Amino acid sequence: MLIPALMDMLGTAAFAISGALAAFQKRLDIFGVLIITFAAAVGGGTIRDILIGNTPVSWMKDQQTIMVIFGSYLLSLFFRKQLQYFPRTLAIFDAIGLGFATIIGVQKGLQVQLSPSICVALGMITGCFGGVLRDIILNEIPLVFRTDIYASASMLGGALYIVCLTIPLPAETAATLSVATVVGIRLAAMQFKWNLPSV
Amino acid sequence: MLIPALMDMLGTAAFAISGALAAFQKRLDIFGVLIITFAAAVGGGTIRDILIGNTPVSWMKDQQTIMVIFGSYLLSLFFRKQLQYFPRTLAIFDAIGLGFATIIGVQKGLQVQLSPSICVALGMITGCFGGVLRDIILNEIPLVFRTDIYASASMLGGALYIVCLTIPLPAETAATLSVATVVGIRLAAMQFKWNLPSV
Amino acid sequence: MLIPALMDMLGTAAFAISGALAAFQKRLDIFGVLIITFAAAVGGGTIRDILIGNTPVSWMKDQQTIMVIFGSYLLSLFFRKQLQYFPRTLAIFDAIGLGFATIIGVQKGLQVQLSPSICVALGMITGCFGGVLRDIILNEIPLVFRTDIYASASMLGGALYIVCLTIPLPAETAATLSVATVVGIRLAAMQFKWNLPSV
Repeated sequence: MLIPALMDMLGTAAFAISGALAAFQKRLDIFGVLIITFAAAVGGGTIRDILIGNTPVSWMKDQQTIMVIFGSYLLSLFFRKQLQYFPRTLAIFDAIGLGFATIIGVQKGLQVQLSPSICVALGMITGCFGGVLRDIILNEIPLVFRTDIYASASMLGGALYIVCLTIPLPAETAATLSVATVVGIRLAAMQFKWNLPSV
Repeated sequence: MLIPALMDMLGTAAFAISGALAAFQKRLDIFGVLIITFAAAVGGGTIRDILIGNTPVSWMKDQQTIMVIFGSYLLSLFFRKQLQYFPRTLAIFDAIGLGFATIIGVQKGLQVQLSPSICVALGMITGCFGGVLRDIILNEIPLVFRTDIYASASMLGGALYIVCLTIPLPAETAATLSVATVVGIRLAAMQFKWNLPSV
Repeated sequence: MLIPALMDMLGTAAFAISGALAAFQKRLDIFGVLIITFAAAVGGGTIRDILIGNTPVSWMKDQQTIMVIFGSYLLSLFFRKQLQYFPRTLAIFDAIGLGFATIIGVQKGLQVQLSPSICVALGMITGCFGGVLRDIILNEIPLVFRTDIYASASMLGGALYIVCLTIPLPAETAATLSVATVVGIRLAAMQFKWNLPSV
């Protein structure tokens, strides 16, 4: 259980750092950067919780996530320049974060007996809508709606997770396969510059 | 019951198509267009459900609405050019959608015993805030806040519905009169280019 | 009890007027101005209520707040020019509003047994996120994330309130001290042009 918990935290940190780095482009003050960091890290789970009525929303009861985000915020403030030398490392952590967030979102949907397609949507919302919120607050059209294979990787991973549970495979095997799929698709998409068609 | 159900679906489709057509202006990828299509179609009802605590929000439990939206999305992708030849037809369906959404919103407010003016506000939110969400995500100041008689048509229709129920008229008569009023005001506003005063 | 109720109403009015004045810059119609006025006045409390699951959200059950906002809206429409001659008066009312909103937000968090740091966050959300919502809808990066000592004043006041309750001081004394602190910091920040560091 230690390794998944550690990877989940790395993923949250990567989401948080994506928020801080985006905020740095926009001349915010340090409070503004803090809020964007939080929004990027927990925005997806928050929107999911609000949509399904799971309130108070998860992060309000989860001191550990708050500590990870606050640590990522301080790290981003003090090592802003150094972080820019590791885009690939950050992208790998981000892909791991997307994978974990997807599985957690699907599980929350299954817990309240929603249909499989809605559960997949909730996994995608958990994984992607923190970035959507970050971009809306920063006055940009959300990146995930414009380019890259990101939400699709989440939805494929989420669908695979449900298929695995239906076979049935043990939940842990299903989660491992699904996170690996999300990470694999993300890394391949970055390597080979895959995009969805534009309209 | 068939005709109202059919008209409600046409209205939802018109809202969805308004989302797709707006998204086409912004160089999104096909995933981005899908999300904007959904946001325009169910955003108003989603905001209403969240405000009154009706969760999981309605569309998560309503496969039929999801099918209508997904169908409208595919229709918009494949018949993008043809749709532009029928602005008047789309506007009529949109007016019908506004009428139905208004009544549904007012009813949901009455169910949780909110005051008449709040119920009228919930009808307007149901009818108009999908478009508001669509515009915010696409980085525009919401159209409905700038021009046209749209929210006002919804509020007049919603108020009329409550007056009719108070008389009391049968719910079905009240709904028919109110939807007809919303559609009538919308069509007149478009025909005669009515606007609220700007400030 | 009369004086706090009166000051709370003045604070709500100041938030509402801040919405109307911001909307006037953006060529909205009178319906758009009304919505921005409401969003600025009750947006923070609405986001707080949604996050903690306190639904239907507070303003839907509070006719008096709705009347104050509507009155502020009419006042802003008819005395738009005159209001601009009193920026300092408006700023003082706004500071009072920030203080009261902060205390109310902290109290709501304590009622649902959230941790002290989350309660302080809820106080800040209640006080500041109406303005955030106002700016997002008006297509601006939220002012509170860019400049000024505003959210920090709220968080200091909220933390002080919890410390006072822990001593324990009577709730009314705690509230008075905290509101006075928020107002004091805000006025000093404006007087001496304090800002948080930018990044």
